[in-house]
Amino acid sequence: MNDKGRETRRIVSVIGTSTATPELYQLARETGRLLAERGCVVVCGGRGGVMEGVCLGVREGGGLSIGLLPGSRDARGEANPYVDLPLATGLGEVRNVAVVSAGCAVISIGGAYGTLSELGFAMRQGKRVVGLDTWRIRDEKDQPAAMLEAHTPLEAVELALEELEGTR
Amino acid sequence: MNDKGRETRRIVSVIGTSTATPELYQLARETGRLLAERGCVVVCGGRGGVMEGVCLGVREGGGLSIGLLPGSRDARGEANPYVDLPLATGLGEVRNVAVVSAGCAVISIGGAYGTLSELGFAMRQGKRVVGLDTWRIRDEKDQPAAMLEAHTPLEAVELALEELEGTR
Amino acid sequence: MNDKGRETRRIVSVIGTSTATPELYQLARETGRLLAERGCVVVCGGRGGVMEGVCLGVREGGGLSIGLLPGSRDARGEANPYVDLPLATGLGEVRNVAVVSAGCAVISIGGAYGTLSELGFAMRQGKRVVGLDTWRIRDEKDQPAAMLEAHTPLEAVELALEELEGTR
Amino acid sequence: MNDKGRETRRIVSVIGTSTATPELYQLARETGRLLAERGCVVVCGGRGGVMEGVCLGVREGGGLSIGLLPGSRDARGEANPYVDLPLATGLGEVRNVAVVSAGCAVISIGGAYGTLSELGFAMRQGKRVVGLDTWRIRDEKDQPAAMLEAHTPLEAVELALEELEGTR
Repeated sequence: MNDKGRETRRIVSVIGTSTATPELYQLARETGRLLAERGCVVVCGGRGGVMEGVCLGVREGGGLSIGLLPGSRDARGEANPYVDLPLATGLGEVRNVAVVSAGCAVISIGGAYGTLSELGFAMRQGKRVVGLDTWRIRDEKDQPAAMLEAHTPLEAVELALEELEGTR
Repeated sequence: MNDKGRETRRIVSVIGTSTATPELYQLARETGRLLAERGCVVVCGGRGGVMEGVCLGVREGGGLSIGLLPGSRDARGEANPYVDLPLATGLGEVRNVAVVSAGCAVISIGGAYGTLSELGFAMRQGKRVVGLDTWRIRDEKDQPAAMLEAHTPLEAVELALEELEGTR
Repeated sequence: MNDKGRETRRIVSVIGTSTATPELYQLARETGRLLAERGCVVVCGGRGGVMEGVCLGVREGGGLSIGLLPGSRDARGEANPYVDLPLATGLGEVRNVAVVSAGCAVISIGGAYGTLSELGFAMRQGKRVVGLDTWRIRDEKDQPAAMLEAHTPLEAVELALEELEGTR
Repeated sequence: MNDKGRETRRIVSVIGTSTATPELYQLARETGRLLAERGCVVVCGGRGGVMEGVCLGVREGGGLSIGLLPGSRDARGEANPYVDLPLATGLGEVRNVAVVSAGCAVISIGGAYGTLSELGFAMRQGKRVVGLDTWRIRDEKDQPAAMLEAHTPLEAVELALEELEGTR
């Protein structure tokens, strides 16, 4: 990896439920593969479900995945088998903040309540956030939250990387 | 405060936007007053908007409010003027986790993205969560999140304290 | 508590080992009593050992103690029996940052490794730090860390409250 | 990188002051180079001083360095120029917990108070901790903390990787 390569590798965070349906798992896997093929480093929570799907896809695409795990030891033991770099954080749920902070964009697939907290932090930080079959969020005036909606992994990746023009 | 008082004082977390409309500010103020009158200790983020409104109401109701501030010094300077106990946390946005963890129930009023992250953590923790004019959240299958919906401060307080039977 | 009282109540953080010897427990208890008698609010980690001793002393002195607990639920169950306001934080070890951030000064009694992390954060924040029978810390040039050394609870409290002239 | 390679790459955390003397900078640089030559991934705080020295050494040794930065955006802008993978965490000082949690061992070089907090967390977690020209820490009974003392970068790396028999 030359210096230029180092400088220009984009990091994308992918968040989502740890208990994914087979459909969500495949969406995550395809998303990971597409991100890897575009040379992105993928950061996620490193556990199962959507996180495992995306790491499998990244491996299939020849990319690099980083999993930020909640415990303080044995990250490999906590991680799904496809995480390239499992990092123990010792932060428990607080790691969610780090997962979304790492990426220049955040792609959310499916999602449980931990994912919802990550979406809140990502939008609070002004990140580019793309939802694929995930939480639908509207404010008290019934205005949608600042998420771009994708209908396929390809659209999610293109919106995240601003290859498509997103509308907020 | 006698020992029994100590043991039985309930803590309720109130979360919401720091830039509240006058309407939201008054909803927060009334909610704080009602919680104080029922002997609850109120924990919030200690800043302006909804947080200031609820602290003013707690003071009017003769209760105790605790504000968990993001900085590591001068919590009084960061806090709204009605916080009884301003606690610097040094945690920045991570303090949101502590704000919702402190309460046996969480009442959300209005809300920006920080509030959304708090709602995610609160439901992740299985807290009793009551929304009053706040985020509307549905999952990818269009099922509502585990929040009780209130239409008035009184209803919000009664749902939070389980004086009303909530439906999830 | 009137507004003036609110404005002027000083908060002091007390940190120390959860498995205290009877001697350390008594030092903590006396320190808590003296802080309460001076009208300080005491913040600690809310568990056993030194934390329990200081909360007992605060209660004997008629003061108010706040315990910041690591879990996200049932703070009362996690807390020692003398904590007045047990606040669950959901932060695990990260709560150590909040414990030292809350006080205008930090008193360290005895101590295990968690306490050492708290001392590092407190000095990083430029807090006034007083050690009583605690870690002895010198840098690579053999210069002492920015802690004031006390030999009795009374001296620790007076140094913390700057009633004595400390030397750094 | 084949699967076996993935499984067996050890992660070592290196901590130390952001304002290093030229001597400490060179110790860090040599330590980074030796860790890279042994195939370790190096995690640090990603800023200047010791953190920059170690990342430069890792690059010279052909290894991979990960920097966990305090901010929530523009990790590249916050990072020293030699960090291979700069990860924004959005955690501020709390990131210190993640820096030490990531490694199977922690090497401390020089150090300011942030480093001291990291040493506390690392020993709290039972990590293998090696000090090179860093804080000297003894408990209230004048017993040394659970750190191995190294006198050269080579000794530090060998102790961290248990190629030497450390004494605690």
